[in-house]
Amino acid sequence: MTTAQHPTRDGRQFADRHIGPDTDAERRMLETVGYDSVDDLMDAAIPEVIRWTGGLDLPPAATEQEVVAELRALAARNTVAVSMIGLGYSGTHTPAVIRRNVLENPAWYTAYTPYQPEISQGRLEALLNFQTMVTDLTGLATANASMLDEGTAAAEAMTLARRAGKNKSSVYVVDADTLPQTLAVLATRAEPLGIEVRVLDLRTEPLPAEYFGLHLQYPGASGAVRDHTPLVDAAHAAGALVTVAADLLALTLLRPPGEIGADIAAGTTQRFGVPMGFGGPHAGYLAVRAGLERMLPGRLVGVSRDAAGDPAYRLALQTREQHIRREKATSNICTAQVLLAVMASMYAVYHGPAGLRAIAERTHRRTAALAAGLRTLDRVEVVHEAFFDTVLARFPGRAAEVVAEAGRRGINLRLVDADQVGIACDETTTEAHLTTVWAAFGAVAGQAVAPAAPATALPAEIARSSDYLTHPVFRSHHSETAMLRYLRRLADLDYALDRGMIPLGSCTMKLNATTEMEPVSWPEFADVHPFAPADQTAGYRDLVAILEGWLAEVTGYDAVSVQPNAGSQGELAGLLAIRAYHRDRGEGHRDVCLIPSSAHGTNAASAVMAGMRVVVVGCDTDGDVDLADLDRRIEAHRDTLAAIMVTYPSTHGVYEGGIAALCAKVHDAGGQVYVDGANLNALLGYAKPGRFGADVSHLNLHKTFCIPHGGGGPGVGPVAVRAHLAAYLPGDPLGADGAARPAISAARYGSAGILPIPWAYLRLMGPDGLRRATGVAVLAANYVAARLRGHYPVLYAGNKGLVAHECILDLRPLTKATGVSVDDVAKRLVDYGFHAPTMSFPVAGTLMVEPTESEDLAELDRFCDAMIAIRAEIDKVGSGDWPKGDNPLANAPHTAAMVTGDEWPHPYPRSVAGYPTGVDRRAKYWPPVRRIDGAYGDRNLVCACPPPEAFE
Amino acid sequence: MTTAQHPTRDGRQFADRHIGPDTDAERRMLETVGYDSVDDLMDAAIPEVIRWTGGLDLPPAATEQEVVAELRALAARNTVAVSMIGLGYSGTHTPAVIRRNVLENPAWYTAYTPYQPEISQGRLEALLNFQTMVTDLTGLATANASMLDEGTAAAEAMTLARRAGKNKSSVYVVDADTLPQTLAVLATRAEPLGIEVRVLDLRTEPLPAEYFGLHLQYPGASGAVRDHTPLVDAAHAAGALVTVAADLLALTLLRPPGEIGADIAAGTTQRFGVPMGFGGPHAGYLAVRAGLERMLPGRLVGVSRDAAGDPAYRLALQTREQHIRREKATSNICTAQVLLAVMASMYAVYHGPAGLRAIAERTHRRTAALAAGLRTLDRVEVVHEAFFDTVLARFPGRAAEVVAEAGRRGINLRLVDADQVGIACDETTTEAHLTTVWAAFGAVAGQAVAPAAPATALPAEIARSSDYLTHPVFRSHHSETAMLRYLRRLADLDYALDRGMIPLGSCTMKLNATTEMEPVSWPEFADVHPFAPADQTAGYRDLVAILEGWLAEVTGYDAVSVQPNAGSQGELAGLLAIRAYHRDRGEGHRDVCLIPSSAHGTNAASAVMAGMRVVVVGCDTDGDVDLADLDRRIEAHRDTLAAIMVTYPSTHGVYEGGIAALCAKVHDAGGQVYVDGANLNALLGYAKPGRFGADVSHLNLHKTFCIPHGGGGPGVGPVAVRAHLAAYLPGDPLGADGAARPAISAARYGSAGILPIPWAYLRLMGPDGLRRATGVAVLAANYVAARLRGHYPVLYAGNKGLVAHECILDLRPLTKATGVSVDDVAKRLVDYGFHAPTMSFPVAGTLMVEPTESEDLAELDRFCDAMIAIRAEIDKVGSGDWPKGDNPLANAPHTAAMVTGDEWPHPYPRSVAGYPTGVDRRAKYWPPVRRIDGAYGDRNLVCACPPPEAFE
Repeated sequence: MTTAQHPTRDGRQFADRHIGPDTDAERRMLETVGYDSVDDLMDAAIPEVIRWTGGLDLPPAATEQEVVAELRALAARNTVAVSMIGLGYSGTHTPAVIRRNVLENPAWYTAYTPYQPEISQGRLEALLNFQTMVTDLTGLATANASMLDEGTAAAEAMTLARRAGKNKSSVYVVDADTLPQTLAVLATRAEPLGIEVRVLDLRTEPLPAEYFGLHLQYPGASGAVRDHTPLVDAAHAAGALVTVAADLLALTLLRPPGEIGADIAAGTTQRFGVPMGFGGPHAGYLAVRAGLERMLPGRLVGVSRDAAGDPAYRLALQTREQHIRREKATSNICTAQVLLAVMASMYAVYHGPAGLRAIAERTHRRTAALAAGLRTLDRVEVVHEAFFDTVLARFPGRAAEVVAEAGRRGINLRLVDADQVGIACDETTTEAHLTTVWAAFGAVAGQAVAPAAPATALPAEIARSSDYLTHPVFRSHHSETAMLRYLRRLADLDYALDRGMIPLGSCTMKLNATTEMEPVSWPEFADVHPFAPADQTAGYRDLVAILEGWLAEVTGYDAVSVQPNAGSQGELAGLLAIRAYHRDRGEGHRDVCLIPSSAHGTNAASAVMAGMRVVVVGCDTDGDVDLADLDRRIEAHRDTLAAIMVTYPSTHGVYEGGIAALCAKVHDAGGQVYVDGANLNALLGYAKPGRFGADVSHLNLHKTFCIPHGGGGPGVGPVAVRAHLAAYLPGDPLGADGAARPAISAARYGSAGILPIPWAYLRLMGPDGLRRATGVAVLAANYVAARLRGHYPVLYAGNKGLVAHECILDLRPLTKATGVSVDDVAKRLVDYGFHAPTMSFPVAGTLMVEPTESEDLAELDRFCDAMIAIRAEIDKVGSGDWPKGDNPLANAPHTAAMVTGDEWPHPYPRSVAGYPTGVDRRAKYWPPVRRIDGAYGDRNLVCACPPPEAFE
Repeated sequence: MTTAQHPTRDGRQFADRHIGPDTDAERRMLETVGYDSVDDLMDAAIPEVIRWTGGLDLPPAATEQEVVAELRALAARNTVAVSMIGLGYSGTHTPAVIRRNVLENPAWYTAYTPYQPEISQGRLEALLNFQTMVTDLTGLATANASMLDEGTAAAEAMTLARRAGKNKSSVYVVDADTLPQTLAVLATRAEPLGIEVRVLDLRTEPLPAEYFGLHLQYPGASGAVRDHTPLVDAAHAAGALVTVAADLLALTLLRPPGEIGADIAAGTTQRFGVPMGFGGPHAGYLAVRAGLERMLPGRLVGVSRDAAGDPAYRLALQTREQHIRREKATSNICTAQVLLAVMASMYAVYHGPAGLRAIAERTHRRTAALAAGLRTLDRVEVVHEAFFDTVLARFPGRAAEVVAEAGRRGINLRLVDADQVGIACDETTTEAHLTTVWAAFGAVAGQAVAPAAPATALPAEIARSSDYLTHPVFRSHHSETAMLRYLRRLADLDYALDRGMIPLGSCTMKLNATTEMEPVSWPEFADVHPFAPADQTAGYRDLVAILEGWLAEVTGYDAVSVQPNAGSQGELAGLLAIRAYHRDRGEGHRDVCLIPSSAHGTNAASAVMAGMRVVVVGCDTDGDVDLADLDRRIEAHRDTLAAIMVTYPSTHGVYEGGIAALCAKVHDAGGQVYVDGANLNALLGYAKPGRFGADVSHLNLHKTFCIPHGGGGPGVGPVAVRAHLAAYLPGDPLGADGAARPAISAARYGSAGILPIPWAYLRLMGPDGLRRATGVAVLAANYVAARLRGHYPVLYAGNKGLVAHECILDLRPLTKATGVSVDDVAKRLVDYGFHAPTMSFPVAGTLMVEPTESEDLAELDRFCDAMIAIRAEIDKVGSGDWPKGDNPLANAPHTAAMVTGDEWPHPYPRSVAGYPTGVDRRAKYWPPVRRIDGAYGDRNLVCACPPPEAFE
C-alpha cells in the first residue's frame, strides 16, 4: 500500500510539527552534506570535550492536548480576583479586536525587529503612533518605542540624567512617594555605576545642595497628586535634570510633565489595554524634552524617505545603540516590548483622545466616590485630598483586618502598613467593587456605609488644558470595522514568519506554535496582578519553578531566575552575580571583563553597566578566540580579572574546540566564565554550558525557547548560574523574600505572562525532541552552507569544515569586484520573497544565515535557489551586462508602484524586477516602499506621525 | 478644551463600535440625503401602516465585558464530558494552527460566498481540496463543496436518486442500521414529495420488488461493519440508485463506497477537526459517481481559466442552482458550510494520508481493545464481530445502570435499549477512558476487568487497498510552519470584510465583532455532543431559549425555532408549518404558493420541496408587487391558496406601502403569509413582520444577526411563527420531546455552536442600539443613492424617493450605449479595492448596493468616489477614447503580473490599470487571477485539484 511509504507523521508527536524536514527530507539533506545520519554529523561537528552524553532529565514529550490540559490545571490554581492594589499595575479592558488581531495574530507576533525597514512599515507605523501617543500625553518632544517596564525605564532615565546634566554630583534624589519596585531597580542599577540614590520625602525633607538628577512620581505611589513645579524649578536651579514617572491615563486630566518643566518622563503603558500578566510583559516608555533626543536609549522610530522620495519609516539614530558603540554605549537595551507597545498604541487609536479622557474621568469619578464613602466611616481617614485613581485610607491599627476582609470578598487591596490601606481604581472598577470595599471597611468598623455622591479630587491648578492625540490616526479608527481594517492593512505591509523564512543569524527565528501561544490569552494567566496574594498565584509559581528547573537541566546549571525580561537584562544580572561573588570573597577589586572582538555589542555594554572595565580579546584567522591573545590579556590583568564573556557556539556560528581550555585559563586566573546563551539552539541535548566550564549564562527564551519576537519584543532573558553564584540571582523587588537580592526588573518573575510559552515548548518536545531539533538545526545550516559554498565563500567553519547552526556567507570579494553590497543582496532578497539574513554581523560585508530546525526542505531550497539566482545577477553586474548604479540589485527592493510605473527607464525588464525566478506570481509579497535613506532621516529627525498629506 | 468636541465615544457602548458613522458623520450624511435626523428619515421612508412604535422588550445594552461575563456564566452551566455516544458526532482534536488561523481569523470568517471568483481563489482552493478529499476517500468521481449536515445530505441524496434513477417507484428503502436523526430528516423531506421511506432491517428483511433508491450506513449506526456489495448489486439490478452514508475516517481503512458500486455517498466531515458544538455547524458532504455530477445540488467548485489562460477556480454549473432555476430547481440549498469545510479540508492537508490512516488505526485499535475487555465480563456480550470505532455491548437488563455509572465517572455512553449500550471511540479516546468504561460495566457486574490485548476487527475482505490523497497538497504542509504559511497564502489571495466594504445587496455584510466570535472557541460551547444528557447542557438550552425569545420579540412572532441551519431550511420549515396547519384544519388541498417575480429563487425551490405549486405574481413598474395581478391570482386559486411568500422590504430594496393590504387579501382567501426575513436589517426596532400581518418568517442570523458569512456558510435560518403555527415548528430529530415534529436538520438546535454570536449581538446592542443600527443602515443606503443618482439611475424607490437599506443602480442604459456591462463594472471595482455589489439580482443588468450600518463615512465615500470614477471611465469608452474591447473595464480585474508585464499593448497607461483614483499605493489588494471564463470551466468540468504543473 503506497500510503504506508509516507513519512510517519501521525500528528501525535509535536516534534514532527515543530521540525520542518521530515524523514525523507532529512535523508536528502544529509546526502548533500555528506553524512549518514544526524548523529554522525553532530559527532563530527561538536568537539568531544564539550559533548554531553547524559541525556536530559525532563519528562518525556507530551501531546499538544496533554500539554493544554496540564496548563489548564496550572491556570486553575491561579485565582482571577479583582485587584485594587495599584502600584503601577491596573486592570484594563483589552479591546477584543486588538487581542485577536494583534496579540493572537502571527502576522504581528512572529515578526522580527524592524531592522529591514522596507518590509516592516506596518509595525513601524504602529510604533510611531506609540511614540506620538507618549509625546502627546507627556508633553515632551521625543519618545522612544518602548522600554522593558517602568522600573528599568526609570533606571535609564537616571543614567540619561547623569550624562546630560550639568551638575556632576553622584547623587540622584528620588522622592519617597515612588513605586517601591522602581526604588529597588534604581538601587540595583546605581550601585555599580557609583551613583548614590538618596530617597527623600520631599514634602518634609529638603533637597541636597548637589545632585545630578531628581526623580518624582506623578501621581505618587500613595495616590497623592501634587504640583511638582516647585521641585522641578529647584532642581533646574541646581543644574540637575528631572525625571517624572507619570501615569499616562492620569495625564489626560493632569498637566503633563513637559508643561511642568520635566526633562524626562518615564513609566508604563500597561493600563492601555495590556493584561497585567502577573507582572509583564508590558511596554515601558521614556520621553525627553527637545535637545536630549540623541541621548535616548533604546529603539527610536523616525521618518525618512525612500528611493522614490516618499516618506518611509525606519529605526533612527542606530549608531547610539550598543551594537555599534559596544562598551561606549550608555545602555545595553536592545529588545523593546514591541508587541505590547503596538497593543497600547492601538488602544489609544481605538479610543481616541475623547475616549481616553472619558476612561480617565470615569476612573477618577469612581475613586472620588470611593473616598467619599470611606469618609463617612468613623475612624477612617482619607489621607490625601488630591488624587487621581488611588486612595490612601488610614484606619489606625486595622489595616490588615480590612485587607483580609476585602480579600475574603474577592478584592485585593494594598496593605501599606498597620494603619494604612491603598485602594486603586481603574477602568474595570464597578459600583459593586466600591460597595464591597466599603463593606470590607464597614465589616471591620462594625458600621454600615452610605456611599456619598461622586466628586472630583484633582487640583484645578494642575488640570490639563492642552490638547493631545490630535493626529488623524487617533480619530479615524473608532469603529471595530475600521480598527480591524487598520490592523490588517498594517500587518499586510510587513513580512513575518507567517509569510516565509527569516534566516537571521543569531536570532533563531523558528516556529512559535499556536499551542504554545494560546494559554497567554487565558484570563487565569493574563489577569493576575504581580503583587496578588501568594494563595492566588500557586499555578504561576509552580509553572515558574518547573520552568526554572527545566532550564537549569538543559543548560547544566544549578539555579535559574526568569526575572530578567530581556537578554540584555539577563547579561546584567549574570555580571552583577559575578561582581557580588568576587566582592563577598574579598576580591571586589576584580573588575576586568574580557570580551572577544566578535562578541555581541550588548556584552560590552552590559559589562560597563555592571561596573566592569572591558578588555577586548582578539580572534584568529579562523574566527575563533585567539588563545594566545587570551593568555596575554589574562596575564596583563591577572589580579583584576573578573570574568570573560564568550558566546558558544561563537557568534561566527562555529563550535570552537578551545572552549574548555578557555574556561580553564580564566578560572585559573580567578575569573568567572560567562557564556552568552544566544546560540543555545545549537547545543540543547548535545552540550551543557554549565557542564563544560561556564559559571553563568543568560538564555534567550525568545530564541531557542519559542517566545515569538513580536516585532522586537517581548524578550525574556533568564539568568542561569552554577551553585556558587546562586545566592546572587535576582530577588523580589518588593523584598518580600527577605534576601537583599538585586532587582533586575520591576516584577518578581519579569514577563511572567508569556512563560507558558517556553514551558509548553519544553513539555511538548521532551528530551528527545529537543535533541532532534538541535540536530536538524545544525543539519539545516550545513545544508545551506553546502548548497551555497560554490556561489559564496562560507567564512568560518569548525571541525571537518562544519558550521554549527548558522553560517556566514562572505560577500566581500564580490563587493570588491562588482560594487554589489551586502545591502543590495539583502534588499534583493525581498524581491524574491525573503527576509534578509543578518547583515554585517559579526563580520562587516557578510550575511549570516540561521535556518533553524523549523524550516522545511522546500523553503530551504527556495532560499538557496534565490541566493544562487542572485549570484548570477551579481555576475551580470560584474560583467557589465547591467550598469553598476542601475540594476535589479541596486534598485532593490522593487515596489509594485515602481514596477507598474508608466515609465520604465531601467536596463532590465520589469519581469526581472518584480518576478525573479521562483517567485509565486499569484501571491507575491510586495514591499510598500523602496530602499530607505536612513542617513537622511537621522539628519532630519522626525519621530512622530507625519501628516497624511505627506503620503500623497 | 478641544478634545471635548470629539464625538463622544467612550468605548463603553458597543453600538458605537458596531455602527460605522459617528455623530458628526451621521450629520453630514443626513445633509446629503436632505433630512434633519434619522428619525425624520425613517418617518418618511417607512409606511405608517407597518410602523412599530412599541419599542422592543429586550434587556438594555450591556458592555462587551458584561456580555462576556454573562456568556461565561452560561458556558459554565454546560459540562464538557467525554462523549462516547457516537451516532455521527465524534470527539476530534482541532489542530490549534487551524483553529487560530481559520476559525478565529477574520480573513476567513468574514469572507463572502465566492461568487466573485477572481477575489476568492484562496477559499476556492481550500474547497477544491475539500472536494478532492471527499472524492478520494469515497472513491467517487465528484463531490460538492459541502452540505449542511449528514441528515440533509442524505435527504438530498434521496431526491437525487429519485431524479436520476431508472426505477420510477416512489419507495426509498433505508436500512434500519441508519443514524436515527438521518431517518427523521428523510421522513420529513419525503412526505411532501410523495416519497415513501421504507425502513427495513436488511440483515433479515428482503428488499421490495420496486424502489427507486437504497440508503445504507457504513459502518452502521450500531457500529457494525458489513460488506454492502450484495445489497448494492441487488439495488442496481432493480434499477435503483444506492446511497452509502459513510464515515470518512473509516474509509481510510475500508473499501470505499465507489469501489463497492455506490452511486452516491453522503455524510459529515465533523470528525476532521471540527468541534461538535452541540450539533453544528459542521460540513456535510455529498459525492457521486461519474455521470451524476450535473445533478449534484449545492455548491461545486471547478477549475477553469482566466483571461491569460491560466488555471483559475470558480463555482461551477451554477445554472443548476435555485437562483437560476427557481421552482424548477431540485434543491433549495444555497449556503454551504464553507468555513467548516475549510477546517476539515485543512485537517486532511495537515495530517496527510498517512496521518489520517494512523488516526483511524489508533482509533480502531482502541475500539478493538475496548471490545476485548468487555468480552472478559460475564453476561456482557459484544454484539458485532466486525466494527470500526463503535462497539455495541449487550448486558441484559443492565444497560441503563451501565450508562448511569459511566456518566458518574464522566463518560457519556449511548443507551440503545434496556439491554444494549453503544460505545464509540475517536481520536481523543485514551487508555484511561477504556478503563473507565470497563469499570462502569464492572461496577454493575460486580466484577473486575482485565483488559485484553488489542486486536483488529475489520473484515479483511473489505480492507481498503486503493490509494488516496495523492495530490501534493496533502503531502506538503505537515509542519506547523508550512501549514501556517499555506493558510496565510490562501487568505491573502482573497478579499474579505477585513480588507474593505462588501456592499452586497441582500447580504448584509456587516461587522462580525470579535466579542461575538470569541465564545465560539470556548470548550464549554465547542466540545459538547448534541445527544449529551440534559443535565450537561443547561447553559446551552438556556442560551437557546433566551435567544428564541429575543428573536420572537424583535420580529413580533410568538414562537421561534433555531433548528434550521440555513435560510433555505428555515423557508422549508416555515412552509411545512403552513402545510401542516392547512392539513390539520381539513384544508390539505391548499397547495398553491404565490411568489412575486422579484423573489429570491430559493423561495420557489423551497415551496416545491414543501409540496406546493408555485404561481408567480407580477411586479408593477415601480418594482412593487402588482396588487391587481395579485387579486387575479388569488381569484384563480382561491380554493387552493396555501400561502404567499414575499420579502420585506422587497428584494428591490423598497418599503412597499401595499404590504398590509397584501397580507389582508391573502388572509381573506384563506392563505398564510410568509415574509422572507432576508431584509430584516431594514426593520429591527421600526417594524415587526409578525405584527403587520405575516404568519411566518425565517431569519438569516448570518445577515442581520452578525454570524459571519464564513466564505459561504455557516448560515443559521431560524423559523419564526405566530401562535397558530407554533405547534408545527421543528422538533427533536430523536423524538426526545415526544411530539411528532418535523426534523429540518439533524440536530435539535441546528448549528448551536455559533448561537452565542447572535445572542451576544442582541445583548450588546440592546433595543436602542438595534433601532439605531437600522436607522443608520437605511441612512447609508440613501446616502449612497443620493451621491450616485447623478451618475447611475437608482432603479426603485418608495416613499418620497427613499430606498430602504439597499439601492439598485441601473447599468442598462449605459450598457446599451457603451457596451460596458455590469460584469465589467463589478470586476473594475476590484481594481479600486472593492468587492462588487450584488450583480443582476433582482433585476438583470443592475448592481444592488447594501452598505449596512457598519461602514463608516470614509469607506462609503471611498466607494461612491470609485463608482463615480468608473462612470467617467465608462464615458471614455462611450466617447471612443478607449476601444470597446480593450479598456480598463473590459480588462478588469488587473493582476500585478499583468500590469508589470514586460509588454503593455493596451491603449491606457499601466497606472490607470493598477492604481485608479483613490487606491492606496502602499497597500493595494491585487487579485491573483484575471477575469475567469466560467463557461469554459462548465464545458470542461474539473472538480478536483489540478496538478501543480498546471500553474507553471
